[in-house]
Amino acid sequence: MQGIDYKMKRKDIDMDISTEKIAEMVKRAIIEMNSEATTSSKNSGGIPIGVSNRHIHLSQEHLEVLFGKGYELTPIKELSQPGQYACKELLTIVGPSMRPIENVRVLGPVRSASQVEISATDSYVLKVKPPVRESGKIKDSAPIRIVGPKGIVELDEGCIIANRHIHMSPSEAEIFGLKDGDYVDIDVNGKRRTRWFDVQVRVHKDFRLEMHVDTDDANAAGIGNGFIVTVAK
Amino acid sequence: MQGIDYKMKRKDIDMDISTEKIAEMVKRAIIEMNSEATTSSKNSGGIPIGVSNRHIHLSQEHLEVLFGKGYELTPIKELSQPGQYACKELLTIVGPSMRPIENVRVLGPVRSASQVEISATDSYVLKVKPPVRESGKIKDSAPIRIVGPKGIVELDEGCIIANRHIHMSPSEAEIFGLKDGDYVDIDVNGKRRTRWFDVQVRVHKDFRLEMHVDTDDANAAGIGNGFIVTVAK
Repeated sequence: MQGIDYKMKRKDIDMDISTEKIAEMVKRAIIEMNSEATTSSKNSGGIPIGVSNRHIHLSQEHLEVLFGKGYELTPIKELSQPGQYACKELLTIVGPSMRPIENVRVLGPVRSASQVEISATDSYVLKVKPPVRESGKIKDSAPIRIVGPKGIVELDEGCIIANRHIHMSPSEAEIFGLKDGDYVDIDVNGKRRTRWFDVQVRVHKDFRLEMHVDTDDANAAGIGNGFIVTVAK
Repeated sequence: MQGIDYKMKRKDIDMDISTEKIAEMVKRAIIEMNSEATTSSKNSGGIPIGVSNRHIHLSQEHLEVLFGKGYELTPIKELSQPGQYACKELLTIVGPSMRPIENVRVLGPVRSASQVEISATDSYVLKVKPPVRESGKIKDSAPIRIVGPKGIVELDEGCIIANRHIHMSPSEAEIFGLKDGDYVDIDVNGKRRTRWFDVQVRVHKDFRLEMHVDTDDANAAGIGNGFIVTVAK
């Protein structure tokens, strides 16, 4: 949760609103504070949000085209999902609009195929038409160009908008009564209350409980990293 | 609805998916086509979406500071709500980040107070912290600077993120069984299915049935202008 929220509440209360509305707002604020205080989410059934900004996964071949022969990724920060990390490397992406988006972070480790994950907002800037997809499913996805310091990669496919999904370990899945490949509806009690339908559940022993959404979803709902969401009843 | 959708569907069908999933996708595509074909939304209970990009309302005083003494707005396009229009005039807005956002459209007619409506995404670019508000309620909202060809306006307050709302005429409100100031939940059967809770209903004789959301909401749900949404049961 960002700072906007508290400011909004405090200032709205200064305005001419009914007692009923104030009661409703206080109730919701308490619910939000409680959900944020839940660090172990398992007991409450809460799921912490991880907001994915636009990013790039690279194959070793493309990494070397972009940064030079024999180049290796430089990890700078572990991500919440074990084994995944943000890298020092930043690239520029460009589409038919010729309006580049700069400083797009590379995530490691290298993969078998390169993939560029952007938001719908980005897609209008670039004028690309990526499908909404599960990460890794790039067949017939949108073309995009990646510009690096030593070369350019023209992907015929590989640009997607990631679907909304939840990572969980087998034991977490058991607590939720869910299995890999299930779809659930998620309630988001943020500044603009929202329900996300058809959220994909991914279960793997290396996963940690977290729901991944992109910046459009997070900004539309008025939430940020660590915000706690719940499975809709 | 933008072009992304059809492409996504066609290409997903190329992939290895079950008959059940194909049936579900076809069903949803038919529902979407039907809802788009509904030009008179009253019978189906559908409400067309109008996506509000960032924009500025100006007072006559500020218009003259920005464009010069005696300046008048130049209407170029009527908006869906009667009496409202987009103007030729574009301005630059800037906040504490000092990263300006250019080409922000002015909407007419002039108002008693200037107001800048942006998305949460814009707020992170500008580093401003606007409250989520009903248009016109600018008391203690965020400060922002507006740069024009002839001068700069420094607003102490006036920057907001507009709340989700529905315009309707009294007769439309009667059909929906709603009144001015009511709140409803709205289902959005777009590329990423979503429910928007607590959507404000505004009824006025000069209004025409339309739900206004910002670009974050539209992009998160994967919808565009004219997409038909429904009141959640």
